[in-house]
Amino acid sequence: MPTTNADSSIEQIVQVLERMRARCPLVHCMTNEVVKDITANVLLAIGASPAMVEHAGEAAEFAAFADALLINLGTLDDEQIHAQREAILAYNRAGKPWVFDPVAVGALGARTRFAREILNHRPAIIRGNASEIIALAGQAAKGRGADSGDSSEQALDAAARLVSQTGAAVLVTGAVDYVLDGARALSCANGHPLLTRVTGVGCAQGALAAACMAVAPDRFHGAAAAAAIMAIAGDLAAARAPHPGSFRVALLDELDRIDAAAIRGRAKLS
Amino acid sequence: MPTTNADSSIEQIVQVLERMRARCPLVHCMTNEVVKDITANVLLAIGASPAMVEHAGEAAEFAAFADALLINLGTLDDEQIHAQREAILAYNRAGKPWVFDPVAVGALGARTRFAREILNHRPAIIRGNASEIIALAGQAAKGRGADSGDSSEQALDAAARLVSQTGAAVLVTGAVDYVLDGARALSCANGHPLLTRVTGVGCAQGALAAACMAVAPDRFHGAAAAAAIMAIAGDLAAARAPHPGSFRVALLDELDRIDAAAIRGRAKLS
Amino acid sequence: MPTTNADSSIEQIVQVLERMRARCPLVHCMTNEVVKDITANVLLAIGASPAMVEHAGEAAEFAAFADALLINLGTLDDEQIHAQREAILAYNRAGKPWVFDPVAVGALGARTRFAREILNHRPAIIRGNASEIIALAGQAAKGRGADSGDSSEQALDAAARLVSQTGAAVLVTGAVDYVLDGARALSCANGHPLLTRVTGVGCAQGALAAACMAVAPDRFHGAAAAAAIMAIAGDLAAARAPHPGSFRVALLDELDRIDAAAIRGRAKLS
Repeated sequence: MPTTNADSSIEQIVQVLERMRARCPLVHCMTNEVVKDITANVLLAIGASPAMVEHAGEAAEFAAFADALLINLGTLDDEQIHAQREAILAYNRAGKPWVFDPVAVGALGARTRFAREILNHRPAIIRGNASEIIALAGQAAKGRGADSGDSSEQALDAAARLVSQTGAAVLVTGAVDYVLDGARALSCANGHPLLTRVTGVGCAQGALAAACMAVAPDRFHGAAAAAAIMAIAGDLAAARAPHPGSFRVALLDELDRIDAAAIRGRAKLS
Repeated sequence: MPTTNADSSIEQIVQVLERMRARCPLVHCMTNEVVKDITANVLLAIGASPAMVEHAGEAAEFAAFADALLINLGTLDDEQIHAQREAILAYNRAGKPWVFDPVAVGALGARTRFAREILNHRPAIIRGNASEIIALAGQAAKGRGADSGDSSEQALDAAARLVSQTGAAVLVTGAVDYVLDGARALSCANGHPLLTRVTGVGCAQGALAAACMAVAPDRFHGAAAAAAIMAIAGDLAAARAPHPGSFRVALLDELDRIDAAAIRGRAKLS
Repeated sequence: MPTTNADSSIEQIVQVLERMRARCPLVHCMTNEVVKDITANVLLAIGASPAMVEHAGEAAEFAAFADALLINLGTLDDEQIHAQREAILAYNRAGKPWVFDPVAVGALGARTRFAREILNHRPAIIRGNASEIIALAGQAAKGRGADSGDSSEQALDAAARLVSQTGAAVLVTGAVDYVLDGARALSCANGHPLLTRVTGVGCAQGALAAACMAVAPDRFHGAAAAAAIMAIAGDLAAARAPHPGSFRVALLDELDRIDAAAIRGRAKLS
């Protein structure tokens, strides 16, 4: 698959960020109970507006108001499965994008069955670590809870299969992040291990992807912007906060401070 | 409506703060899943004690122990509606105050119906942004999720209508906050835009209002204390933390540090 | 009951910490909605891996993957009772340890009935404040929500009764923490009042106890390690962060930084 032009992608990512600050997209997050606080704070820091609407009836109604939807399977129960299904159908009817984060898919039965079902409903972006992407594509993965036992490179075949099955852009996170759609591929070598020592950063990146999708020219650059913005903010935060408590605080500050110059000067895309 | 004497109100607010530290009221919070952490931490920082009891049977039982109740509609489901209704009835039977935060009322059907129902059960304080107060009063609002599309001044008629309908003191939040009861009105011009860039600060102010209500001489000064304490702590925090991650940390520190001198020296009431 | 040798216990605690960093135990937390964020961040900071799986079917399945289970009753509902019961049975079948944190047991009916039931299922460690331990043992306690109205010394008889009834090691937290099993007792005089001014630190200590239990030589030293690590990290954090917002950040940083030298140099065990 041809890689995309890195310089052109950087300018597209800059435009996504600038449109985010100008338009403040409203992002409907149906996500797990561990990460709602950091997810909302990441969206507020980057310039978007979060809304967590979980009631089945209200979640479908909210498709009329929000700009994009995040579906995250982190702490699933039966009521949430019902509400998420209703919401996805409503966003598809409204012609608005939804982003899918298949947390811990593979080992656990209920969420894996539900994940396979909703793959048929045309997510705009699928974001996961390598083990989640491999398991979602129906292959044997080494995940352990929400942790990946595989490297992001090992998930590229599975990611390509998900692209052709669903039409989504796929973002595989890891030491190096990869973004694929049917025509292009991009890697992002930014990011710091401290991003994995703070709970919910990966899940919040799914919400960031939904915010980017609301203002991006296409699915590929929505996913690429979510990858680059979080990873570069992580680099900036780690440079001044070497422990996880203060790193979490610095990451939110850097998401507020990040601008075109930081992206142009620091992005390691290829 | 006559405004109240600002100097006298400042002294009442100081007394509420000092009684808070002396008595450590136990505040029963039935609130949404996004903001439980910051809500509990705001109460602990100001000197109150939080308890989040959600089980329908236990929530009613807990009226025997707590000093005040917060009802927040942020992430409503059917089980929570049932438990909140039981709790309100139990607090009314026990003669203890409850505070109502009608998050995102207006656009969404389930919460709007429930909000109208519980308005009949005599809340001590109603706290909301302008769009929520306007919608709760049955007028056409411009809210978008939990965000207000109206200024707090535009909600004053609706607030006055809610006062006469329910007997509550109403706190309308915005660039300027307003507090009304049937006899008095007060504005508070403290506060900083960063307060809206951290998730849950508004919801935590509802819990702070319940804590103030537990030690205040009346509903009006309970609401006024919640407005002034949060806004002045926000001013102090913004002076040393200009980005949202570190602002959240500084806000909790300033709620711990705030004292009579800070309130007397900084309150912008009229 | 004979006290244990403090120097030997310190070396056992050091070994627990070093094994934690080497093995990164996966800790399944079924805990309340207020504290999931800080619980996960405490585990990540100390070097363990958190997983919050709540769906009844998945929670039992997850016993095949995780190293230990935490059961915390903080915000109980009927679905959670069902899922927690299934999970405990699955961990017992798998021969893996579970830790029990009976939050606010005593005053509230639903959780007290459930707590008495699961006491029969052989928890490895029971962690609670004095009022919770006294109430769990069936005696009259002075708790108020999640706050203790009793000192930890007053709970020692109740703790000994729970040890003989269940076979668990019991950790009673307070100004001084106590650890007991059937043969030994230890007190830990480290810790700072700011630990009680941040929501969820006590609940997160329950998760830390589960992480320690996954790598400890026995129940007693698993509980002792959880007591000493949290209390010493609290001492270190309070020395540089005197207010609760920044103390929470510093506590997570110190849990990341704590090492054998800090434990040997600062532990106040007897």
